[in-house]
Amino acid sequence: MKLFTLLLLTSFTVVLHAQTDKEKIRTIYTQSLTNGQSYQWLDHLSNAIGGRLSGSENAEKAVQYTKAELEKLGLDKVWLQPVMVPKWVRGEKEEAYFQIGSDIVNVNICALGGSIPTPNLGVEAQVVEVQNFEELETLGTDNIKGKIVFFNRPMQADLIQTFNAYGGCVNQRYSGAMEAAKYGAVGVIVRSMNLREDDFPHTGSMSYGDLPNHQRIPSAAISTNDANKLSKALKTNKNLQFYFKQSCEQLEDVQSYNVIGEITGSQFPNEYILVGGHLDSWDLGDGSHDDGAGVVQSMDVLRLLKESNIKPKRSIRVVLFMNEENGLRGGNKYAQVAKQNNEKHIFALESDSGGFTPRGFSFDCDQANYNQILSWQYLFKPYLIHYFEKGGSGADVGPLKTETNVLAGLRPDSQRYFDYHHAENDTFDAVNKRELELGAATMTSLVYLIDTYGIKTIKEEKPLKK
Amino acid sequence: MKLFTLLLLTSFTVVLHAQTDKEKIRTIYTQSLTNGQSYQWLDHLSNAIGGRLSGSENAEKAVQYTKAELEKLGLDKVWLQPVMVPKWVRGEKEEAYFQIGSDIVNVNICALGGSIPTPNLGVEAQVVEVQNFEELETLGTDNIKGKIVFFNRPMQADLIQTFNAYGGCVNQRYSGAMEAAKYGAVGVIVRSMNLREDDFPHTGSMSYGDLPNHQRIPSAAISTNDANKLSKALKTNKNLQFYFKQSCEQLEDVQSYNVIGEITGSQFPNEYILVGGHLDSWDLGDGSHDDGAGVVQSMDVLRLLKESNIKPKRSIRVVLFMNEENGLRGGNKYAQVAKQNNEKHIFALESDSGGFTPRGFSFDCDQANYNQILSWQYLFKPYLIHYFEKGGSGADVGPLKTETNVLAGLRPDSQRYFDYHHAENDTFDAVNKRELELGAATMTSLVYLIDTYGIKTIKEEKPLKK
Repeated sequence: MKLFTLLLLTSFTVVLHAQTDKEKIRTIYTQSLTNGQSYQWLDHLSNAIGGRLSGSENAEKAVQYTKAELEKLGLDKVWLQPVMVPKWVRGEKEEAYFQIGSDIVNVNICALGGSIPTPNLGVEAQVVEVQNFEELETLGTDNIKGKIVFFNRPMQADLIQTFNAYGGCVNQRYSGAMEAAKYGAVGVIVRSMNLREDDFPHTGSMSYGDLPNHQRIPSAAISTNDANKLSKALKTNKNLQFYFKQSCEQLEDVQSYNVIGEITGSQFPNEYILVGGHLDSWDLGDGSHDDGAGVVQSMDVLRLLKESNIKPKRSIRVVLFMNEENGLRGGNKYAQVAKQNNEKHIFALESDSGGFTPRGFSFDCDQANYNQILSWQYLFKPYLIHYFEKGGSGADVGPLKTETNVLAGLRPDSQRYFDYHHAENDTFDAVNKRELELGAATMTSLVYLIDTYGIKTIKEEKPLKK
Repeated sequence: MKLFTLLLLTSFTVVLHAQTDKEKIRTIYTQSLTNGQSYQWLDHLSNAIGGRLSGSENAEKAVQYTKAELEKLGLDKVWLQPVMVPKWVRGEKEEAYFQIGSDIVNVNICALGGSIPTPNLGVEAQVVEVQNFEELETLGTDNIKGKIVFFNRPMQADLIQTFNAYGGCVNQRYSGAMEAAKYGAVGVIVRSMNLREDDFPHTGSMSYGDLPNHQRIPSAAISTNDANKLSKALKTNKNLQFYFKQSCEQLEDVQSYNVIGEITGSQFPNEYILVGGHLDSWDLGDGSHDDGAGVVQSMDVLRLLKESNIKPKRSIRVVLFMNEENGLRGGNKYAQVAKQNNEKHIFALESDSGGFTPRGFSFDCDQANYNQILSWQYLFKPYLIHYFEKGGSGADVGPLKTETNVLAGLRPDSQRYFDYHHAENDTFDAVNKRELELGAATMTSLVYLIDTYGIKTIKEEKPLKK
């Protein structure tokens, strides 16, 4: 064959591939927007089941429901992967107020996940407001002992990506009690991780680290409106009394499951491509954005591949992880079993940033793979998918990272996310059907491309058949 | 000066400019997100005033309120531009049902803007369902005379940009009555221009064209849920009776105003840069997205320039147009006066696509200007602004088009827009503060760049001072 002919044939093949890719991706989006299943699944998860805190009855219902729904899709395998999870329960609705003279101002709080309860009669004490741990250290035991520490550093409004603003604040929630306890505080109140000023307290995980049991103090989140109110009151009434009561409890670990479905690859069955979200949620609200959306989008990726008549060369797995919110047991268990079984995960994509209009992905990978991904950008342009940056992926898929594979996170528009995150208003009505479906299609399109072209740094298995 | 030194100096200047632009734009976004005024203005427009149909008392209140607010900003000029506008009123709440035997199914309708009323006792007739005007023609007078025509072509869900789906459907609403009347129909019911299935009927403008008064028939929109219900019922009950009653009315034109504010340019005062939205809205809901958002964003552009310590070289005008929804009288009047006064509008930007997360702009301009704009894209990347396409601008600024100038439209995320558009649920709570503020900052940044660099195809005025 002459060189010229060869070149001509090669470029013809490339053009042909590009055409096929364009058509396949168009089909995927059309299927999702006209024949999607994600919104109907979310309706059930959110409205028929509800909040799915690890170890709860609802979490178990969600396991059974999603397994049954995956079984209807005609996948090659569907199974449950056992994992022991922590069980923390909120108990009765929390109470809180502050008192200036005889005036009582009720405020909205919620216990942070993992916190100990207050004594039965609650905690009442003066309040020390701080912005960060450095201020805490400066104040020291003399000023803190016997008081309630009020962490009130707001999320930074001028950061465009709200997850960065969250990252800059969340240590108050996660480690606030651990730090304040060192100086003899009797309780901790944390400004909710919310960019909006409203009345919803936002829960989330916290940790006492290695602190011995007798030094642990109760911690709760307060709504942004009430944080502002309290801060204002403290300016003129330094000695006001704050009262709160919560009856949350950490129980024994219980049995739960990751839910897994698979389309086995026709050519490279031992190369795994994973899509997932986490099935557990907090108990406030129904966890529609966090992470019901990621769950149903991931389920729909496998369904959309089938509906679009795409027969994967590699094995495609959907994994619905248990216990992302307060333990990450599901993510760790899955990675551990994958390692034991020597399953080569070349790509893992998590959707855990809400069901809003997708903007693109962030990638945890080397430059060769990143370059390959960038070469696909033009295929996404008609769908207004423009964000292809290096960065984090997702908490659940993180443990699968190797030197050579590619991890990714779906990146939806983030402006509204923290209005709902971990709060009572994270409900089905806050999710827009089209936005959810566009996310599912965007994930499916990337999975299709990874399946078609593989990744750059891994040696391909020998195909089963030519 | 040696060529090398000149080149060095030139590139140094370019780099310096780029640095200044970056910093200015960062300041603009920070100002908008931490010290914006748009959301507070919208709160008043939406909640204290409400829906602002042309010719209504609310529209007049909105004129007075926005003028007063602009006057607080220390602009160089604020004034009202008189314009006569049509006054159509809805009258009593519409009623509609269909009847199968003795079963009555109530449905949600609203009169279309400009429609005539039904007779006092309403209209009752059999229904002919069609998808388009071709079908109407095929059916002809024999099948249509004496009946109600039901236009039920849905918006196309697999179009990514929802405005394209709207464009593909809206002729049913605008011309449906005019077309159906030709074949002797007695009324028209149109499926709401809404991609979501819900219970809100969506109003909007319609026209009878040149149809003589006695041939005009009443037309109304029906909610998408009820359109589906009616369509399903018709499949088994071709002869079902549909009843509707509306008491809307077209009154005499009344006096109203465009509201205008100006920062006069320091170097090229006769080159005008315009930002605007429309102050009128439909009467259902409070017009928060359509187009309260565009109004307050446009007002904030001038304030943000001031707060960011930018002193424009060219004259910057905010124009709050009256009567975009049912007449475009304000847009036409403004262009007419601008022409009379020989005001050179080099750039006009409209925000009239909702207060959602901004994605970019579409531009109506020649290639030289488009290329200049594309060269600024990198400045917008940190703000996730990625959409810079040729296309339409806005209805109100359209009449300002010349061969050489640049018109533009802000392009926010469009997925949720038609959930609210022209319906009762277009209210303040559907607008997110950050999304609105990001839009205002994005508009201000583009205005800053146009002011700094001018446009390509127009001869610059001689500067007032060097």
